[in-house]
Formats: sequence, C-alpha cells, structure tokens
Amino acid sequence: MRFTSETSFDGISEQLFTLDGVPGVLWTPEGAAGTRPLVLMGHGGGQHKKAPGILARAHRLVAECDFAVVAVDVPGHGDRPKNEEYDRIATENQARVAAGEEPAPLIAGFQALVARRTVPEWRTVLDAVQRLGHVGAGPVGYWGVSLGCGLGVPFVAAEPRVRAAVLGLGGASASAEDAARITVPVEFLVQWDDERVPRAQSLALFDAFASAEKTLHANSGKHGDIPAFELDSMLRFFARHLG
Amino acid sequence: MRFTSETSFDGISEQLFTLDGVPGVLWTPEGAAGTRPLVLMGHGGGQHKKAPGILARAHRLVAECDFAVVAVDVPGHGDRPKNEEYDRIATENQARVAAGEEPAPLIAGFQALVARRTVPEWRTVLDAVQRLGHVGAGPVGYWGVSLGCGLGVPFVAAEPRVRAAVLGLGGASASAEDAARITVPVEFLVQWDDERVPRAQSLALFDAFASAEKTLHANSGKHGDIPAFELDSMLRFFARHLG
Repeated sequence: MRFTSETSFDGISEQLFTLDGVPGVLWTPEGAAGTRPLVLMGHGGGQHKKAPGILARAHRLVAECDFAVVAVDVPGHGDRPKNEEYDRIATENQARVAAGEEPAPLIAGFQALVARRTVPEWRTVLDAVQRLGHVGAGPVGYWGVSLGCGLGVPFVAAEPRVRAAVLGLGGASASAEDAARITVPVEFLVQWDDERVPRAQSLALFDAFASAEKTLHANSGKHGDIPAFELDSMLRFFARHLG
Repeated sequence: MRFTSETSFDGISEQLFTLDGVPGVLWTPEGAAGTRPLVLMGHGGGQHKKAPGILARAHRLVAECDFAVVAVDVPGHGDRPKNEEYDRIATENQARVAAGEEPAPLIAGFQALVARRTVPEWRTVLDAVQRLGHVGAGPVGYWGVSLGCGLGVPFVAAEPRVRAAVLGLGGASASAEDAARITVPVEFLVQWDDERVPRAQSLALFDAFASAEKTLHANSGKHGDIPAFELDSMLRFFARHLG
C-alpha cells in the first residue's frame, strides 16, 4: 500500500493510495488515532472513487460518525487503464440491446464478470486499510448502488468482516444466489420508476437476501433520483450497526 | 366537544373527550398555547384510541416535536357500543374465509363500509380540535396502519387539511381509487412476510398513490412486527413535512 498524497479539509483527512495497482482513497477524521468502524463504498458505472455521490456520503460518515471510509476505482474506471475485454463486452451488449434484447440480464452478466476481479481486490483493500493505526480492525460496512450493488452483493456474501450493507438500484438477474448467502442487516434502495432496473427484479433481489433484518426503501423517481433524506437514513443505519 | 378528564404525565397533557357520541383523546405538550401541527392517528382492528402503539407514537410526537395528537375510537371499538351490522358482516366474512374465500377483498370491503362513517367523523374531530387555543389551525398529518390504513386512505383522499400521511399494512383491494386521489407525501409501511396482507396488494396500493414524494419502507417480519426504528422514521417524516 503506497500513499501518494494526503490533504485535509473541514476536519477530514483524505489519503490517496495505490495497492497492487489499484488506485484508492481513504477518508478519516483529521488527527484520528485508534480503531474505528470502516465503510467500503463501491461507485456506480461510469463513475469513480471520488464521484460526488461517494464524496458526499464519505464526508458525512467521517464528520458525523467518526468512521473511516475507503473507495477504490473499479477496473476500467477512474484512474485505471481501459480494459479491452470489458470494453468489447460492453460494445457487444449495446448492440444486443439495440437489437431488442432485455438489458437487465446482460448488465447482470457483465457485473458478475467484473466482480470476479473486484471481490478479491476489495478484500485486499480491507486487509491493508485495517492494518493502519488510525483505522484498525473495527466493524466493517459496505455501501454501493447500481454497479456498486452488482459488485457489492458478491463482495458482501464473500466477506465475513462486513456486518451491515446499504445496497440498491440493482436486480436479481445475476446476484440472487450471492444474495441468499447474505445474512447481515441490509438497507436496500429502490427507485420506484427506475428506467434501468425492472421493479420486479429489484424486489426479487431484496427478497433473496437471507438477512433477518432487511429494510427496503422505495422512493418515487428514476434511477438517479435517490432523495437526499436517504443519505441521512444511511448514516443512522451504519451508526446503529457499526457504531 | 365535551372534555371528560384531563391528566398530565411527563410533560404531556392527555384530555379525554366525546364529540357527537365519539370518544376521543387529545395529547398536547403540558402548558401548550398557540397553534401547532396536529397528527390524527387511526388505530388498528380490535384496538382502540389508547392502544400501546398509538400511545407510544403520540407521546413521542408531543414530547419531541411539540405537536398535538388526536385519536378516536372506530365504531365497534374501545368505548363505543357494539355495532350489530358490522358484527354480522364480520361473522359472515369469517365463515366465507373458512369456506375458502380470499380474505383480502372481504377485509377491504368491510373497511370501505366503516370508512363511510369514519371519514365524516374524523373531519368533524379536526374541525373541533383545531378550534382549541392550544392546537389551532396548523398543518395536519395522518398516521394509521392496518385498519388505520384502510380507513386512512379514504380520509386522506377526502381531507385537504392533511399534508402528509404515514400509512401501511394495507392492500389495494378497495382503496386504490382513493389512493389515486392522494397527492401529499406518503411514507408507506410494508411487512415483507405479512401473513394478512398479500405482498402484491401492498405494493399495488403504494403504486396507486399519486404523490410526487412517496417512500415505501418494507421490513422483514410479519404483520405485527414493525421494527422500532420505523417510529423514529415517522417522527422525522412528520417533522420534515409539518414542522
């Protein structure tokens, strides 16, 4: 793990790093020392580790909950090189959708392929970050919607350190089997008028989680229209389960 | 409106009253003066105006939000006389369910019948309570699940003073048309493993609301198992829309 920059703003320390070629960012309270809860955040498709939705949530988790937050670029995103295999599949999928195929299973299949890389990458990130003195081996949470859900479901299923997860804007096509292995508390976000994820697929994914405590929050609006009050809800959810 | 008793506990004043033969209870902050938001709460089937679920929510709305809360007994419940027509229909319905009929449409039909009485009764309650100096004509909210949803949907649809509503544990069988006339913000509670309301009916009722802002909260568990954190969510919802 190699740190490449460190800055501070508004009481929040931001450290950029690379780990086995994966670029990442770690946010902690300025001057933090000792073990604290850690949330790993998975960004959306076409976004990156410091996309506005990630930044806004990370800053509030650090400032209001005193947590650490880590995010890394997904292959082919952010500061990572283009991935020819992924680009080829994405182009093929676009052509198949244009020819009339249902997009949801194609997206799910693609996300399952990418997850074969991100699950081990993210576990390595947890290993490294939890060895730092100002993070430590405290309870871990996961947050990710859309692509961050498609990659997050297999990650949360595989990683016993994750004790609570906020997921959403994803469907059951590829990840129902992984979802059935998840038993930690889940808060699951659905946009009722999602133009990209069929409602029935979203409900089927929520249904598939084996968690004794799971809550679905469905809000009116399209894929990108998660209301601001869900950010508050996420803070309370993680504070309840990791704090 | 005739007050029959007044007591105070923990900073909350509780006034029992009758209005045109309907027994009710009004909770306000002790020593309150002037206009404040008012929440009308509709109790569940077989319950009454001071059932534990009503009391717990009313006390927190008064203590933490400085609101007024009013609840009255539904016909045939609490301090009201038995209603022979309702009892006869309930007995008939039990026999029809025992003979294999789906319970949901029968329950919905029964609730629609009772709502023909409760909608005008509750509007009269609002009129009377809002004339009191320590309540006044402030913004109004409605809370009700199960029977309180079946009676609440036609009430909220009919009453323009209601600006926000928490509803749930109810289905679309009878009330979808009324739901389509509701445009105020709605927080809608679903128990994912509800043994009394079919999941598809619940989702169809949520879908029917015409509100631009509507949020569905579905939690794992049976009809009576709404988790405690939904009480916190209700407080925030009403504070946001009425406060």
